[in-house]
Amino acid sequence: MHTLSVKTPRRECFVDITREVARAVEGTDAVLCTVFVPHTTAGVTINENADPDVAADLLAHLAELVPRNGRYRHAEGNSDAHVKATLVGSSVQVPVAGGRLVLGTWQGIYLAEFDGPRTRKVHVVAHHG
Amino acid sequence: MHTLSVKTPRRECFVDITREVARAVEGTDAVLCTVFVPHTTAGVTINENADPDVAADLLAHLAELVPRNGRYRHAEGNSDAHVKATLVGSSVQVPVAGGRLVLGTWQGIYLAEFDGPRTRKVHVVAHHG
Amino acid sequence: MHTLSVKTPRRECFVDITREVARAVEGTDAVLCTVFVPHTTAGVTINENADPDVAADLLAHLAELVPRNGRYRHAEGNSDAHVKATLVGSSVQVPVAGGRLVLGTWQGIYLAEFDGPRTRKVHVVAHHG
Repeated sequence: MHTLSVKTPRRECFVDITREVARAVEGTDAVLCTVFVPHTTAGVTINENADPDVAADLLAHLAELVPRNGRYRHAEGNSDAHVKATLVGSSVQVPVAGGRLVLGTWQGIYLAEFDGPRTRKVHVVAHHG
Repeated sequence: MHTLSVKTPRRECFVDITREVARAVEGTDAVLCTVFVPHTTAGVTINENADPDVAADLLAHLAELVPRNGRYRHAEGNSDAHVKATLVGSSVQVPVAGGRLVLGTWQGIYLAEFDGPRTRKVHVVAHHG
Repeated sequence: MHTLSVKTPRRECFVDITREVARAVEGTDAVLCTVFVPHTTAGVTINENADPDVAADLLAHLAELVPRNGRYRHAEGNSDAHVKATLVGSSVQVPVAGGRLVLGTWQGIYLAEFDGPRTRKVHVVAHHG
């Protein structure tokens, strides 16, 4: 298991971690890797890495679906972040071949921060067939 | 593969299954485990296990996003549960090291019931590197 | 790794790929398989395969939550598809035993197309314990 440390600059943002995940499987004979976020107010997702507007749209639309100031019981002011974490999910899987991630042309791996800024951990686990 | 049997007390509830999943990988040299729900009106998710209000907020917010009495074609009265199952997902992955789940401080694994009360199955599959 | 090619007939549709995924693990001693979609405007999910109204409800409800003509920055007219891809997810896991998928009675695996019609790729990776 490889653990990355990722700084998130704002309360809500997507941080592209594709390169760091790629490095964790480089030179291995893994067939798949799992990227896992050990947090409950952040998630991980795969989406377009070419146009940064896609990540901005995702954050804006999630904020519409799960407003920060909704009626929540949890009194820490980050209930929206918990709901978004479950909608987005805490892990992704990516096939690996020849020591390289098998991602589609437009795919990047994003840490989805919903309650930053913070330093987050991301675990990368390789599967060897 | 280990199969758990989980009783869900209400139509909509989160049941903490962290301890049961942990037991399934105890003493193994697994590096990861997959928790899979073989149902279409329930899911599995990872979220905060300290304050039960978080799970309550999640259920309440999902009910707002996917109302029970929306306009659905499927005539069994549980269409909301099917939609929520896809939003939440049917599996989670958790890294394992030294026979123990590598979860974050606040993370717990929850069976997400959307059409109970029932007895649900949960499969736990260990990956050995 | 097995790669399927899947034709999607409409802009938004669910295509049942259970049989093709089952074939990819047939006769193997895999304990789990991962189904991965290398696209950013499509996803993969597990839901009911008996009543086609369930898939129709899912598409209709996702279209309500993430309208095609919302206020998006990304100017390609498919921002809704990117948001839905993250909500649904880019991979699913299914336990395998005796060369067969261990799915629940009502479960089927669906490629979720949100920006078709197209020909999509789906990667199936087997895990051998």
